[in-house]
Formats: sequence, structure tokens, C-alpha cells
Amino acid sequence: MEIDIFSDEYFMREALKEAVSAYEEDEVPVGAIVVIRNKIIAKAHNSTELLHDVTAHAEILAITAASNHLGSKYLNKCTLYVTLEPCLMCAGALFWSQIGKVVYGARDEKRGYSLFAKHNALHPKTKVTSGIMQDECSELLSNFFKKKR
Amino acid sequence: MEIDIFSDEYFMREALKEAVSAYEEDEVPVGAIVVIRNKIIAKAHNSTELLHDVTAHAEILAITAASNHLGSKYLNKCTLYVTLEPCLMCAGALFWSQIGKVVYGARDEKRGYSLFAKHNALHPKTKVTSGIMQDECSELLSNFFKKKR
Repeated sequence: MEIDIFSDEYFMREALKEAVSAYEEDEVPVGAIVVIRNKIIAKAHNSTELLHDVTAHAEILAITAASNHLGSKYLNKCTLYVTLEPCLMCAGALFWSQIGKVVYGARDEKRGYSLFAKHNALHPKTKVTSGIMQDECSELLSNFFKKKR
Repeated sequence: MEIDIFSDEYFMREALKEAVSAYEEDEVPVGAIVVIRNKIIAKAHNSTELLHDVTAHAEILAITAASNHLGSKYLNKCTLYVTLEPCLMCAGALFWSQIGKVVYGARDEKRGYSLFAKHNALHPKTKVTSGIMQDECSELLSNFFKKKR
């Protein structure tokens, strides 16, 4: 009997760990990981405050790290797990990377790419799954913004 | 009599020099600079091939460099000059930076943000000027793609 320990929940939990690290560093708590054949090759969390850099979203840092690891700018065999729906910038980056699959947790009702893109902003070959551990992902964000008020 | 040597053409020429550097490095020739009070604080050109990183567009590198220079993630007093209309990723980054003004040269008829964004992808306070030295900017791109064929 073969037991598959890997699931979208398994990997989203790893992305969520990254989001918790962001929370602890007083960054908007979003985490992302990149996986290829069930192996995590990149982990990142939002670091815009630390780096004074709006481009330092979890997804952008994870794409850069994954490409660096693979020595390839295309990530068509990879899946990105991210705790929050990507914004337009990150969706644009994911388009260029031709990433195989994107799995996100909570929807972003304010800046999610699906609200702003005319057509699908992602590559036509990119698969998308959403809502994985969305309650945990969004609760962390709500707690962060409550603390900030 | 006061002579203003600075103009959009002056700064676009500096961005174009960056695009020429990209061309010489066999990168898609797009260049960008960031200016504050007539002073150039960041210069960059597309480096996606060198870095194996789809996020290494001229604009993203220029935003990161300008924020690093100013120690601020907001660029509301700055102008970005770029030889080609930004893509969705770069427009999204420019949105987050709240940049004061964007000046671009050639239109991007394939991947320009204006084709893909439902509303204005940039910040509502960001001013936009286009078409500055567009012939020079697009000629460099045409030459590059001709050479590649």
C-alpha cells in the first residue's frame, strides 16, 4: 500500500509557516513556496518593509529563488503555493514564468489579480486551485490588520 | 535667461542608453531610469537572460534600486522613464510604489499593461506620458528581433 503524504494542504501549510514568519517580522503575513516533483525548492515571505521594496512580495522572491535553484527562468514543471491570491504584479510575474500550477489560500478582495485583469492574467497553460486552507490564511491576515489599527 | 536642459527627451535618451546595453548583452533591449528632482537615482536594463529570472525587467530592477537609494518603498516624488510600455507585472509594481510619473517610449502591442488591465493598473495619482522617442525605442527592439530570427 502506498500512502501519499503530499497534498495541497501539506504544501499550503509550508507556505503558511512562511506567512507566520512574516507576521512575526511585522510584515503583511503572506507566504509562498515553489514545489517541483513534491520537493520544495523555494520558500519566501513578504519582505517589503524590511527591504523598503514594493517588489519584495512573497511570490516574486519565491520565483526568483526557484529560478536560481533550477538555473531556468521557466517554471513550467513547478507549482507555487501562496497563502493569498496574487496581485497584478505577481500574476504578471507568474505569467512570464509559465508556471505549471498556482495554488492559493485566501481570496484578495481588494488587490487580487482576478479583479483587475481583463482576461486571464496567467499563462494559458497554468492551472489554478484556490481556497486551500483559506480560513487559516485569512485569519492570519485579519489578526495582523487588527493589531495594526 | 534660464535654459532648462532637462526634458523628457533628455531622460528618455538615458533610458535608451540602458536599452542599448541590454541589446549588446543579447537581452530584449528595454531600459529604465528613475529620476527625482532632475537627478537620476537608478538605471537598469532588462536582465532576464543573465539572471535566469523573469522578474528582472528593467522597471523592476530600477524600482528596487531607487527604493534602495532613497530608503523608501514609496516613489511618489519620482519619475520612471522606460523605453517600452510596462507589462502587467511592471505596472503592478509601479502601482505599489505610488510612483509620481511614468514616461514610456514605444507602445507594447503584445504585452503592454493597457491591453490587459481592466481599469487603470497604475496608482490613481500616477501621471503617464507616452510616445517620447518612440521611433528610436521601437527600432532598437525591431532590430533585436530581426537579428534573433
